[in-house]
Amino acid sequence: MPPPKLGLVNPNEIALFLDYYELTSTKTDFDHENDALVTQEYFVRSLPFGSYLVSAGLEQVIAFITNLRFEEKDLGWLEATSGPDFRNGFLDFLMNFKFSGDIYAVPEGTVVFPNEPIINVTGPTIEVQLIETYLLNIMNFQSLIATKTARMVDVADERTVVDFGARRAHGRDAALLAARAAYLAGATGTSLVLAGKMWDIPYIGTMPHAFIQNRPNELQAFREYSASFPHNTILLVDTYDTLEGVRNAIIVGKELHEQGYRLIGIRLDSGDLAKLSIEARKLLDEAGFEKSKIFVSSDLDEYRIEELIRADAPIDGFGVGTRLVTGANFNPITREGGVSALPGVYKLVERIGKDGHPIPKTKLSAQKVLLPFRKQVHRQFDENGLFHRDTISRWEEEVPDAEPLLVPIIQQGVLTYDFPLLEESRQYCRSQVELLPKSYRLLSEAPKFPVKLSPELEKVAS
Amino acid sequence: MPPPKLGLVNPNEIALFLDYYELTSTKTDFDHENDALVTQEYFVRSLPFGSYLVSAGLEQVIAFITNLRFEEKDLGWLEATSGPDFRNGFLDFLMNFKFSGDIYAVPEGTVVFPNEPIINVTGPTIEVQLIETYLLNIMNFQSLIATKTARMVDVADERTVVDFGARRAHGRDAALLAARAAYLAGATGTSLVLAGKMWDIPYIGTMPHAFIQNRPNELQAFREYSASFPHNTILLVDTYDTLEGVRNAIIVGKELHEQGYRLIGIRLDSGDLAKLSIEARKLLDEAGFEKSKIFVSSDLDEYRIEELIRADAPIDGFGVGTRLVTGANFNPITREGGVSALPGVYKLVERIGKDGHPIPKTKLSAQKVLLPFRKQVHRQFDENGLFHRDTISRWEEEVPDAEPLLVPIIQQGVLTYDFPLLEESRQYCRSQVELLPKSYRLLSEAPKFPVKLSPELEKVAS
Repeated sequence: MPPPKLGLVNPNEIALFLDYYELTSTKTDFDHENDALVTQEYFVRSLPFGSYLVSAGLEQVIAFITNLRFEEKDLGWLEATSGPDFRNGFLDFLMNFKFSGDIYAVPEGTVVFPNEPIINVTGPTIEVQLIETYLLNIMNFQSLIATKTARMVDVADERTVVDFGARRAHGRDAALLAARAAYLAGATGTSLVLAGKMWDIPYIGTMPHAFIQNRPNELQAFREYSASFPHNTILLVDTYDTLEGVRNAIIVGKELHEQGYRLIGIRLDSGDLAKLSIEARKLLDEAGFEKSKIFVSSDLDEYRIEELIRADAPIDGFGVGTRLVTGANFNPITREGGVSALPGVYKLVERIGKDGHPIPKTKLSAQKVLLPFRKQVHRQFDENGLFHRDTISRWEEEVPDAEPLLVPIIQQGVLTYDFPLLEESRQYCRSQVELLPKSYRLLSEAPKFPVKLSPELEKVAS
Repeated sequence: MPPPKLGLVNPNEIALFLDYYELTSTKTDFDHENDALVTQEYFVRSLPFGSYLVSAGLEQVIAFITNLRFEEKDLGWLEATSGPDFRNGFLDFLMNFKFSGDIYAVPEGTVVFPNEPIINVTGPTIEVQLIETYLLNIMNFQSLIATKTARMVDVADERTVVDFGARRAHGRDAALLAARAAYLAGATGTSLVLAGKMWDIPYIGTMPHAFIQNRPNELQAFREYSASFPHNTILLVDTYDTLEGVRNAIIVGKELHEQGYRLIGIRLDSGDLAKLSIEARKLLDEAGFEKSKIFVSSDLDEYRIEELIRADAPIDGFGVGTRLVTGANFNPITREGGVSALPGVYKLVERIGKDGHPIPKTKLSAQKVLLPFRKQVHRQFDENGLFHRDTISRWEEEVPDAEPLLVPIIQQGVLTYDFPLLEESRQYCRSQVELLPKSYRLLSEAPKFPVKLSPELEKVAS
């Protein structure tokens, strides 16, 4: 019998990570010698929450594009399975495929707004189309998670936010990419060890309830743990009775102190976190453990974090699971929500005609906004250096006193952008969010950030 | 400068796909020579939608467990980064780690209900704990998607349901696992070519709007496409005006017919799908294209599919994207919803005491249901052969005239289960759903399926 399959993506097969319609349409382009130069743009029409989006995922998209090669065995499989219409000519073309176009994009961690181009891809139509599915998959997911986390980190203020979500993430890659996007957006670390290794970010954890249940009593469980982790004792206190758990943690904290160590903190994972954290803080302080911290988890998100902080809960850090790694579009306070996905799209906006002039492209039937032409975004700042206004313009159009957001990444197929370290992108992302005036950072009912169209775009969009 | 990272999981590093607390707790077990035999069970307390769950993902879980090895370089990294408390003894132990326990589980595609054990894992406490994160990640996601798809396939009746969701899936693995889980649950195929290759399932597609915009007019786009795909012409008709698009498709259909081919069908991707499909059917039929099919897509899910069928929309197949691959817990009809994740858990239920007797385990503080002891599920059938009632029992307890659902998978560390082909699991899954009486398959307000406790369990649960 064949062994069970782990089903992980092989990097040498990843060129086939595309929707079949990209192959049918590019094969038709090939057959009809359509090699027009086109631009497609990645943008998001509407956000699942809040007024702003944190762009994330560019590094994985560019790694894919610069390495994009179709292997002989993949093409053989395609020929064997795709029916009589796939002739060899096109498959031979794919064998020699190499991206030769230009890519401009906003750096990872940039704060952007609806309808602003985040990535634009210009090149021969076949090349530009073949990367659609991969680009959308990566950008939609990582930008969703980065945005969700940025909101949590913003309301948590100086308190820590840690990704605890691997068990509820949508597969292995989702857990790893969510840890990356969360860290990029300001999370302190992740519970997932492999994410720590892959992205060089802090990994963090305490103990499961099973660890405590697995021993005769809680006090013994705490004592064994502190003996094994004297430098890093954080005790989970809610397995049986939370405040009794805090008292047991204090006993072990005193024993640690006698041995020259200290109780780093406790974790609450259930119940009324505001009330319990206030009572736990009191018990800890009375026993002389003013420096021991209180960490909480249990179905948290930015709304709950804000609620806890408004209730003056003395919490030092938040472990966030499901609602971080799924980017949950659900407000547990108002009970409003929807689907956990960012609806970003990658649309044809411009085609260079036979006379060399650009032809704007708009889709007419669906009544959805599509700004034609290859575009740039220009950001203006107010007297305090905060974001004041964005202007979307045609690519070559000048906008005075403004900073263009899309920068060159790949030029004529060659990578020219120097990717920052994740740590650098993380600092940049925090500064971006802090440059956004406070009103646009409200969790609910934030106003729309002013994004206007340039004179040239205004002409064609109306 | 270092090249950008694709960030895909390396199968040789996957042992570190665990939450750090599994390492701290198992290291403490190791230090204190705790090698108690325990059972942990995977189950789901409450479902995000409907009355039943389709179990999926077992193959990827078992592939992980049977291959679980810690590599020297991973352990070196762990030692270097995890602080002063990780001594070598435990890391040496991990170097020789091999799962030696027993696993029982329901086969993939089995219909199960809340609180029923789906997988139980029995073995030394360290081994049983280390697989938690991976098991939950895979089972929660694939079971969510299989359940969501089973509901769509069920209401779609004989019409096809195809996964179109790669662009909105949570990363690359999510897109591939969703295609697998959807196919397992009865989908006809996927748009994602790599999923077709990886799981040996049909891959399907038409053309993007950009393909049509990229040509002087729709008719020319259709002609070029049909010239390139005469055996498989399905035309996307809604780029400009949908009914005009149908008329253009008919023109091309006639040209195809003259060449000895036929128009397979058309696809609608926007607008009022019920109304447009009725009008399109009329145009096609009047022109003699009674056999050409109508496929639709555009924010579909099981509720929309049911609505379209109730409106007598003459639709032959549904392409479902976002709400399939995210397992969206959102009803667009009632506008109720929540978080796109299955809240499955993996809990300690039993520990063999020093006297050899099992000690039941329950967590007390959170007031959540936890049935103690290692358990089996027994299914009874009615006179028509349909599912009648389930009984959850203690492991060795007999339940007459019932079929036990959990079967042996791994025994003393050795794989003894012969994994069926995905195609076989798919047939099995469809038959499982069809054995569930109709009332439990209602999309909204389905009653709870009767699941009772055995006499022995009743004693300890009350």
